[in-house]
Amino acid sequence: MNALRDKARLIIDEAIAAVLPEEAVKKALADIRFKGNIVLVAIGKAAWNMAAAAQAVLGERISEGIVLTKYDHSKGELKGLKIFEAGHPLPDQNSVKATGEILEMVGKLTSKDELLFLVSGGGSALFEKPLEGVSLDDGISITGQLLSKGATIVEMNTIRKHLSAVKGGRFAAHCKGAGIYTIVLSDIIGDPLDAIASGPAYPDISTSEEALKIVSKYNIELSEKCLHAIRIETPKAIENCQTMVTGSVSELCEAAAKAAQKLGFSPHILSSSIQSEAREVGSTLAAMAKETVRNNHSSFTIKRPCALILGGETVVHLNGDGLGGRNQELALATAIGIQNLENVVICSVGSDGTDGPTEAAGGMVDGQSFKRMKTAGIDPEEKLNQNDSFHALKASEDLIITGPTGTNVNDLMMILCG
Amino acid sequence: MNALRDKARLIIDEAIAAVLPEEAVKKALADIRFKGNIVLVAIGKAAWNMAAAAQAVLGERISEGIVLTKYDHSKGELKGLKIFEAGHPLPDQNSVKATGEILEMVGKLTSKDELLFLVSGGGSALFEKPLEGVSLDDGISITGQLLSKGATIVEMNTIRKHLSAVKGGRFAAHCKGAGIYTIVLSDIIGDPLDAIASGPAYPDISTSEEALKIVSKYNIELSEKCLHAIRIETPKAIENCQTMVTGSVSELCEAAAKAAQKLGFSPHILSSSIQSEAREVGSTLAAMAKETVRNNHSSFTIKRPCALILGGETVVHLNGDGLGGRNQELALATAIGIQNLENVVICSVGSDGTDGPTEAAGGMVDGQSFKRMKTAGIDPEEKLNQNDSFHALKASEDLIITGPTGTNVNDLMMILCG
Repeated sequence: MNALRDKARLIIDEAIAAVLPEEAVKKALADIRFKGNIVLVAIGKAAWNMAAAAQAVLGERISEGIVLTKYDHSKGELKGLKIFEAGHPLPDQNSVKATGEILEMVGKLTSKDELLFLVSGGGSALFEKPLEGVSLDDGISITGQLLSKGATIVEMNTIRKHLSAVKGGRFAAHCKGAGIYTIVLSDIIGDPLDAIASGPAYPDISTSEEALKIVSKYNIELSEKCLHAIRIETPKAIENCQTMVTGSVSELCEAAAKAAQKLGFSPHILSSSIQSEAREVGSTLAAMAKETVRNNHSSFTIKRPCALILGGETVVHLNGDGLGGRNQELALATAIGIQNLENVVICSVGSDGTDGPTEAAGGMVDGQSFKRMKTAGIDPEEKLNQNDSFHALKASEDLIITGPTGTNVNDLMMILCG
Repeated sequence: MNALRDKARLIIDEAIAAVLPEEAVKKALADIRFKGNIVLVAIGKAAWNMAAAAQAVLGERISEGIVLTKYDHSKGELKGLKIFEAGHPLPDQNSVKATGEILEMVGKLTSKDELLFLVSGGGSALFEKPLEGVSLDDGISITGQLLSKGATIVEMNTIRKHLSAVKGGRFAAHCKGAGIYTIVLSDIIGDPLDAIASGPAYPDISTSEEALKIVSKYNIELSEKCLHAIRIETPKAIENCQTMVTGSVSELCEAAAKAAQKLGFSPHILSSSIQSEAREVGSTLAAMAKETVRNNHSSFTIKRPCALILGGETVVHLNGDGLGGRNQELALATAIGIQNLENVVICSVGSDGTDGPTEAAGGMVDGQSFKRMKTAGIDPEEKLNQNDSFHALKASEDLIITGPTGTNVNDLMMILCG
């Protein structure tokens, strides 16, 4: 390990700390002036952490509330709040039961109440109650048909929203009497508020007409009652709700930039919406690192010491059957591209602390990584072809291990140039 | 067409003009102080243009010389210089004959002479004479075997150099009596001087031992005489030669940066060695453009108006059978990524003016390109899947047409942000 690697790790740790649900919720709450009695609803994989953070700030001003999260994601009791756990990634009867309890609670709200609605990823499965006449199995069968026939994620969401009593803005409609403040922990690039947790309190941009077209396009088999449900339009405007996005990949990048600046690097955020193939982004970052290190064009090259920061979520198209994840694959491709380059460290890390089905969060490579792999008897190109980045980076001691972080706001990529 | 597109086109035109062989040779000659009688040898696809430029500067100080270029690449007589044309990409008997004439001429040089050696891409095939006992067919057969068995380009070059009387620094050895000034117009990313035209006047980094290992690794069939030739070592040090690289992709980027600056954009050269998959670079550039245009992180985002410049040569792995080239494919992928984004133009263009088997040099897209394609009845994603970027960009009027430019220093990519 050298000083530059240590600094890169510090930056990563600070960036992730800044987007933990606790920090993110506190930051968002600072911008809200509650006037009435506060009722809390928290849904998603980070629901417990978000609710605990809100309780730490608002204390007994929260009169009652319900937390709905994934199995094994509750971390104990929260005074005055009911906690439910349910199925993910597929909704189950506990999803429906807990959602029913939430609807019952918010059905009693009046104009004297304000709802604090905390939303995180996974909410689509956890927070679900089908429309009258539609069953959970209907939804699962229709989704399965859409998947097998190659429908896009947007098409699937359009159908799902129209079959649900809470998705696509319909939850907000249940809370008519009260003002709603929604705090969204974003796990989708670009923060599409209608898509995160299927947008329970956000106006739906999809229409019944579109949903019906999708049914006919893919020749979906469904009951008369489901067809009737799809014909009912979702809300296109919601008056009583304000939405704040927090803990997004954008904040992850910004926090990394600030941490880099504190350590003396000039930070440049080049993108917060990278979605390209992991290995190609890796080779592109390598090519950018060469330019910056070698400073070929003194007046036009970004000045060292610097941190070039990118956020997003790359993809991997599998060719082999090795072990790895998108961040590790990116790092391995980068290691191949920066052989013998000095004074630079490049890393890619998942903010949730888990990259693919591995114990690592990502990888951090330098100009000697390639050689270290070779010395350990590993052929880096072969490992890349096999999608076996985990074993390559393990051999060169280039894995980043953080353990589960408790947040999920996509990935951070960084070229740190000394 | 709008003002930003016009400015992007101006920048492209100025950048390419700066790396034309004529300009590049003049620039390099300004750094040479000739002391003696000048003899000229020019090889490669740009040999005629480079020789003409040298003659324009040095006039009658050049006492004699030979120009060796590809068929149909001579543009007429050059006073006092012999002009030969030969085969490319495969060498033929005219390659050997002309190379023999060159060797005969330089064999007579004395310490009173100085050789001006002008090298451009294509020189490997054009400038070739096999070692004693080796035939041109031997070389072609061995190269064919290596290709079919999956040898890398570096492995092929190692064998080729060891079978040749002029490659791998051996040409310089023929000119022992005279000082050599080599001006290289670089067509390979990173300017590897031992690889451009197979490095006739540059110390070889490959060894006989490596070449023999490659023969045995791929089980290559070859004659006893060829095996004998491979055992002879190539020069590892050359005392009498100075080499200057000119007209490289690095200069292309630098010229683009200067042209952008003149028009009021702050230029940043992010890389001059991009070699990733075209469509993935395209989507990455789109993601970077979004960041810059939206200026999400005011203190850490690159300030507008700006030009983010990259050089290199992307690759395309074909899935479909459409018409296109790497620059057009990159531009099409970018168009999909920047839908409705305002105030930005992204372009990718081949400095030789020819992108793939098309009449276009590349593509220039903006936030309305996607819509223009749709309006013209084109499905941009489908066209990208079919590698049919030419027809998509033609429909949206986003092709860049320059005609053949007379140079070849890889590609220029640029995000121009107003």
